[in-house]
Amino acid sequence: MSPIPGPPVRVTAVDTYDIRFPTSRELDGSDAMNPDPDYSAAYVVLRTDAADGHEGHGFSFTIGRGNEVQVAAIHALRDHVIGRSVDELCADPGTLNRDLIGDSQLRWLGPEKGVMHMAIGAVVNAAWDLTAKRAGKPLWQLLADADPEWLVSQIDFRYISDALTPDEALDILRRGRAGAEDRRTRLLERGFPAYTTSAGWLGYDDEKLTRLAVQAVRDGFRQIKLKVGADLDDDIRRCRVARSAVGPGIRMAIDANQRWDVDEAIRWTKALTEFDPYWIEEPTSPDDVLGHAAIRAAVAPVKVATGEHVQNRVVFKQLLQAGALDILQIDAARVGGVNENLAILLLAAKFNVPVCPHAGGVGLCELVQHLSMFDYLAVSGTTDDRVIEYVDHLHDHFLDPVVIREGHYMAPTTPGFSATMRPESIARYTFPGGTFWAADLNSQKGHAA
Amino acid sequence: MSPIPGPPVRVTAVDTYDIRFPTSRELDGSDAMNPDPDYSAAYVVLRTDAADGHEGHGFSFTIGRGNEVQVAAIHALRDHVIGRSVDELCADPGTLNRDLIGDSQLRWLGPEKGVMHMAIGAVVNAAWDLTAKRAGKPLWQLLADADPEWLVSQIDFRYISDALTPDEALDILRRGRAGAEDRRTRLLERGFPAYTTSAGWLGYDDEKLTRLAVQAVRDGFRQIKLKVGADLDDDIRRCRVARSAVGPGIRMAIDANQRWDVDEAIRWTKALTEFDPYWIEEPTSPDDVLGHAAIRAAVAPVKVATGEHVQNRVVFKQLLQAGALDILQIDAARVGGVNENLAILLLAAKFNVPVCPHAGGVGLCELVQHLSMFDYLAVSGTTDDRVIEYVDHLHDHFLDPVVIREGHYMAPTTPGFSATMRPESIARYTFPGGTFWAADLNSQKGHAA
Repeated sequence: MSPIPGPPVRVTAVDTYDIRFPTSRELDGSDAMNPDPDYSAAYVVLRTDAADGHEGHGFSFTIGRGNEVQVAAIHALRDHVIGRSVDELCADPGTLNRDLIGDSQLRWLGPEKGVMHMAIGAVVNAAWDLTAKRAGKPLWQLLADADPEWLVSQIDFRYISDALTPDEALDILRRGRAGAEDRRTRLLERGFPAYTTSAGWLGYDDEKLTRLAVQAVRDGFRQIKLKVGADLDDDIRRCRVARSAVGPGIRMAIDANQRWDVDEAIRWTKALTEFDPYWIEEPTSPDDVLGHAAIRAAVAPVKVATGEHVQNRVVFKQLLQAGALDILQIDAARVGGVNENLAILLLAAKFNVPVCPHAGGVGLCELVQHLSMFDYLAVSGTTDDRVIEYVDHLHDHFLDPVVIREGHYMAPTTPGFSATMRPESIARYTFPGGTFWAADLNSQKGHAA
Repeated sequence: MSPIPGPPVRVTAVDTYDIRFPTSRELDGSDAMNPDPDYSAAYVVLRTDAADGHEGHGFSFTIGRGNEVQVAAIHALRDHVIGRSVDELCADPGTLNRDLIGDSQLRWLGPEKGVMHMAIGAVVNAAWDLTAKRAGKPLWQLLADADPEWLVSQIDFRYISDALTPDEALDILRRGRAGAEDRRTRLLERGFPAYTTSAGWLGYDDEKLTRLAVQAVRDGFRQIKLKVGADLDDDIRRCRVARSAVGPGIRMAIDANQRWDVDEAIRWTKALTEFDPYWIEEPTSPDDVLGHAAIRAAVAPVKVATGEHVQNRVVFKQLLQAGALDILQIDAARVGGVNENLAILLLAAKFNVPVCPHAGGVGLCELVQHLSMFDYLAVSGTTDDRVIEYVDHLHDHFLDPVVIREGHYMAPTTPGFSATMRPESIARYTFPGGTFWAADLNSQKGHAA
């Protein structure tokens, strides 16, 4: 090697891909609000001129139409990333996070919500993937090994300092170190508890629901989830079928996917209480902090859960302040990436609310497991009443797919954020030019002719 | 005319334009959060095959970078619009509104917030422009003439029925009819009160601030507004200068453009109280309902105003439920268009909170005046404590620009929503291919060479 230092290593490209899977054809993923999703990823790869060849991969998850808008939003961020020193980026992804959120012209399109904010999340998560790959650690381990002071420096406290100060965050992280080594050992042996939604899609008939629910329990899951909210009589029947299939000892969550107004949510949930639902998820608009608080007060002891569509830390802060939540459901790809999810995990810890992530879709399981494992090792210190959603879709498109054993997520050991999609999947499912879609569109033309 | 009916008239095209004005070069529009906006419009034209030649014009307002993402979002909606019967669309724009909000795949990108929701607003507003043009009325008049039942049918009550039911909305609109004819006469004579922000941009020095503030009072404005929030000492000086320029009888609002956390907002506002600010606008995140409530409780009698970045009716509902607002600031182009703004006007009426619209930017004054005039004629029935923001930028790019007389918006009489931009402005400021930008980019290349 030459003793003269070479030019600094830079990010050289921010490449985007519009990747769509035709999941609507099987009614996988169907619920009361989303009858026919085509699970999709607005996918981004940060490339560098480093000799190590590492790339940072990230994505926003969407359900089909509009994925091109999400890709355009990621593309709009490229000038903030290209040319950055890779050493500086990986030493402090928080600066990239702040620069992206702070672009005053792009901020107008949110602020910190919707398409632009999910795009920031994709790019920031890609930076963390690169950081972890270069550190040679899975992301959960990189975060759990990090100094509390450094983790606090990664958080944007703007708009949450009335609920969580940097000093409070530091205290939580310092306390979190006690016993972390024992927890790491347990995590590597046992994994992190999962629950499964695979049985409960609205598009499945009672026979399939029963079969999949029984199988879930046999597979070691201690919690299942059912979609509800389209038709009350159907929901009563399906809850009865599912409860009878799994027996009384298994937790059964129900999920309305924002279908109801406040009063309707209360009535409907009460009508299902006899089947002992553990939580009611997304009973109404994810924007309605006060509505969730009213619902929670009315439906107890059924717990209230939400978060997969909660746009940012400011809304999570209020859900906690208002006592609107029993269960906080982070999503790895909805908010502004790892940095904002660190803030949300610490807010949840401050308010003593368990975090049970949303997952499924494309790659959401792969990402979010890292955050829960960090939460267990370094923040909450427990897996009691904590479960990560698991859906058995589309994992084989990833190089480092999740591993589920006896109803637990096994800790990934490959360096990175488990975000890297197989090149052949990208080539096949890129829309509309990938081999799958090109053939599909061609055959539709054939039918039309 | 032939007695045989022809084929139904349809929407034939949804054309989009990326239009950007180089306003950052003059520091017009500079505030503590937005130091260098390039006022822009993601512009949409609905074309039909009707013989009358009417088009529906609408837009999202942005401040520069990312306008192409906003254009892509509008483009993503085109299949919901093209081919629609124009008669049906104009008889019931609410169905288009519900169809756009209800697209389950696109909904994932919000829901009802950010880029996708602003895109829906642009398309829905364009449909209302077309509706009003075909009716031969300015939009304010079309709305004020409409049956209360029909207006209620235009509103999506989802997620707000716990605060406002269709029956309550109907009652408000029926009561609003009393005296409407007298108010229409007064409106046509006197116009609707305005306040001006033209004096108070952060980028202006004290001399320019004084000169413009004095001029505003001479021009008949009874309220001005100052941007604050970058530096407290500067703000104290500028508030003193402005108060001394206008005297004690003129209302002086201050606007922090979301710069502060909750505690900071309280401290900073109190430090400016000696200059008798009428309202503090956007003291913190527009998402922070509970934060606004805390600020309002602490800074009274200074009023709290927000809304230009409030994403939808669900957040406005909560701001009202929580008693977080003294002044509700609708924006014509942030939420999902006229239909959602009808809901917001009625929510404000239910909670007895005056509506003082945000305007400025590109074309926001042109649009929002129609909504305030409708509010005066048919909902609130008063202009007491109601003022529409006025900024004297970029009006000459519109075919039917606002007319201000003695500090009042004069009621437009041209049919439509005043949204139509001059063709020559579109040709000049389309980015990057319009004549202005092509020459500008060319000259930059020259400098670089």
